[in-house]
Amino acid sequence: MNSIGIYGVGVMGRGLALNLASKGYRVSIYNKELHRVADVVKDSKYTLHGYDTVKDFMMSIHHPRKVLMMVPAGNPVDDVIESMSPYFDAGDVIIDGGNEWYQRTQNRQDVVRNKYGIELVGMGVSGGAYGAEHGAAFMPGGRRDAVESIIPFLRDMSDDKSHVMYVGEGGSGHFVKTVHNGIEYGIMQAIAEFYGILKNEYCLDNLAIASWFEECNTKYELNSYLIEITVQILRTFDDDGTSLVDKILDVPRMNGTGTWTAKEALDTFVPCPSIAAAIDARVVASEKVVRVRLAQYKYKCMSQTSDIYDYMHEAFVLVMHMTYLQGFQLIRAKSDQEEWDVDTRSLAQNWMGGCIIRSSILEFFAETSPIMYINRSFREYSNKVQKLALLVSTCALQGVYIPVISATYQYVLGYTTPILPANLIQAQRDCFGSHGYERIDMSGKHHTDWMSNTA
Amino acid sequence: MNSIGIYGVGVMGRGLALNLASKGYRVSIYNKELHRVADVVKDSKYTLHGYDTVKDFMMSIHHPRKVLMMVPAGNPVDDVIESMSPYFDAGDVIIDGGNEWYQRTQNRQDVVRNKYGIELVGMGVSGGAYGAEHGAAFMPGGRRDAVESIIPFLRDMSDDKSHVMYVGEGGSGHFVKTVHNGIEYGIMQAIAEFYGILKNEYCLDNLAIASWFEECNTKYELNSYLIEITVQILRTFDDDGTSLVDKILDVPRMNGTGTWTAKEALDTFVPCPSIAAAIDARVVASEKVVRVRLAQYKYKCMSQTSDIYDYMHEAFVLVMHMTYLQGFQLIRAKSDQEEWDVDTRSLAQNWMGGCIIRSSILEFFAETSPIMYINRSFREYSNKVQKLALLVSTCALQGVYIPVISATYQYVLGYTTPILPANLIQAQRDCFGSHGYERIDMSGKHHTDWMSNTA
Repeated sequence: MNSIGIYGVGVMGRGLALNLASKGYRVSIYNKELHRVADVVKDSKYTLHGYDTVKDFMMSIHHPRKVLMMVPAGNPVDDVIESMSPYFDAGDVIIDGGNEWYQRTQNRQDVVRNKYGIELVGMGVSGGAYGAEHGAAFMPGGRRDAVESIIPFLRDMSDDKSHVMYVGEGGSGHFVKTVHNGIEYGIMQAIAEFYGILKNEYCLDNLAIASWFEECNTKYELNSYLIEITVQILRTFDDDGTSLVDKILDVPRMNGTGTWTAKEALDTFVPCPSIAAAIDARVVASEKVVRVRLAQYKYKCMSQTSDIYDYMHEAFVLVMHMTYLQGFQLIRAKSDQEEWDVDTRSLAQNWMGGCIIRSSILEFFAETSPIMYINRSFREYSNKVQKLALLVSTCALQGVYIPVISATYQYVLGYTTPILPANLIQAQRDCFGSHGYERIDMSGKHHTDWMSNTA
Repeated sequence: MNSIGIYGVGVMGRGLALNLASKGYRVSIYNKELHRVADVVKDSKYTLHGYDTVKDFMMSIHHPRKVLMMVPAGNPVDDVIESMSPYFDAGDVIIDGGNEWYQRTQNRQDVVRNKYGIELVGMGVSGGAYGAEHGAAFMPGGRRDAVESIIPFLRDMSDDKSHVMYVGEGGSGHFVKTVHNGIEYGIMQAIAEFYGILKNEYCLDNLAIASWFEECNTKYELNSYLIEITVQILRTFDDDGTSLVDKILDVPRMNGTGTWTAKEALDTFVPCPSIAAAIDARVVASEKVVRVRLAQYKYKCMSQTSDIYDYMHEAFVLVMHMTYLQGFQLIRAKSDQEEWDVDTRSLAQNWMGGCIIRSSILEFFAETSPIMYINRSFREYSNKVQKLALLVSTCALQGVYIPVISATYQYVLGYTTPILPANLIQAQRDCFGSHGYERIDMSGKHHTDWMSNTA
């Protein structure tokens, strides 16, 4: 009988425990809040083995042990490793299934290898609460032999064998999960912006908006999980028969992974403006008190909305694609830099499985060589740019807050503008900092004493 | 006679050495590339004392020593400190005048205090090559007594006593300099975007564009140094009598401080989209080969430009102000978080001195309590938003790449929109991650089983 330990039975840990137990695994569980262990064991329709001490938990797992940690990222992971360490034996593999920053994972991999002679796999898990129990996408990274030793049990937990892949060495598994979440932030904000336009500018009711999004998934073939749940949300009613989403406060929360993606994009020099704009949008939305106070200064629009309704689907498809593109470009750049050699085709395939950002858009990345991403994206989607232009222009006149749509449009424009006014920036830097500049008509670095050399 | 040592005589170090020598200081200089020392001594019209060894350099400085390091940030600073350390005496103060990341400065402050019993001041210096020699803005941070011991010599180096201030403890001096540079990135890109619009959409020649910018500084009272040098650049001619800036390649370079600002904004939850967009714009501009290849997919505009020419000055003033606002909001948040208690009024006053981003816009921040920044900004500038709306809308139709203008407009809209579609994001997060949501009609955290509860 296959044996596994799961440390941490919150929403995700519990789901994975039930998932494995349903597949015939002997699942040992432990949780710092002991009452959780008892609750989870009691409520489970499959047999779970709960323990009151870390020692008993560790001793119950067959050798070589596989222990999946499902605890919050950061110090809790160090604490958990520390608490299990007296019981580690050579050959044990521990797996961090949380949303950890990849550099911390890499540091820990070195520490546990040198100190305890065991391997740590940093594994991205996507699929949410439902996915944990019924089949999620797994992105394990670390030493190849350690990852390969856990692949069979990951396969058993996923709903489709193609959704388990070896991402690469070190923290690559956690890195790609971080970017996955960054894309998720971008997509969610893009959906919210289109919802806002349809609601406020076109005065559609939620059922009509649901149908609009349903068309995106069917007629426009996006097949996106986040759109699917959006449709479902827009069709959900409160006890009083009114639409439930209208009762929800417009103050979203967030965790750290979106921010990590935006910071990594900056460090890697890969523009991800749609993702960055989505992070800012959450911060701005969270400052509700300020927004309400400043509403008196709201820009009053002067013009009528042009009829852009018929263009909106295609504009939406373009924004969605470009947001994925930015994430994949970031993964590609980072994989090159760290020599992880991430197979981005398989990764896209993996994400088409149980994960939150699954969508037909991923087929593009499953079929395309990274070197062709940007060329092929523009070749296939440039016919939609005009529609996005009309949407952005109209929203600008109407004063609609559309940070992601707007940043995506700028991204598209920037990459298709052969001559930019950045020559002036080169001149400014040379003027105040003697940084020099390059010329279009001769090679080498040049410098001018701008303040003396005038007409 | 006042004695000081300057380690590193690149553009800035040399300028500061000459500046101090001209004020009657006994200036000892040293540089890793020894020939530089000889060259600087030889070319100086004031007496400078050059040394061939770190030991002789250190021994020549009177006690308690003041040593200003003007070397690249990062490892070089550690190397310099290490090389001087055999000669440190209690009471010495070393000053890092480079663009260092504030956390590294804080770590070094602890190290030198514990290991050598001396103090390190992390000091932002702004003013460029000219300012170094003739009067720059100084932003020293560190232990108060250490900073106060060097204030007299900083006063002697600056052109106006108000431009020297004690920023705060720890790395606060380097932090505010970092944000200063972030604002600089935003302003430079904003100027470039307006230059691009005037050049490409209105077909103005460079002299006409120079006059337009001159009006911003005079009639619209921006009095900005960066605008001033822009005017000068646009009026500079090449040997063949044509405009020199037109010969410059549109591929700008950058150092790390802009990126640091954008990352810090993410960590501190202070939206700085105009600054972030300026960083992305430099990256996009640097990818010239890609832009030229993708130009075939450039969006072809369908409409005529509306006549927004008369609105552009005011739109520009608004973009400029909002970019400074974002930087000051970031400093305010960070100062609170780190308990630095930065006097932002004095800081604005300081920046009005020799620094690169000096402008009358800073008067607003010299006069305004941080808590009133955002309210007062919107109160005073909201009458210009409509003009920005027209500009953004027109540029969107024309397909003009305006990342900073566009991000600034979104920033303004976000903060003045009392109800945002972020309720949908709360619902999505609850749907896939059981994160719960808040309601507008009752308190507490709520959860819905969205996938079963449908119409």
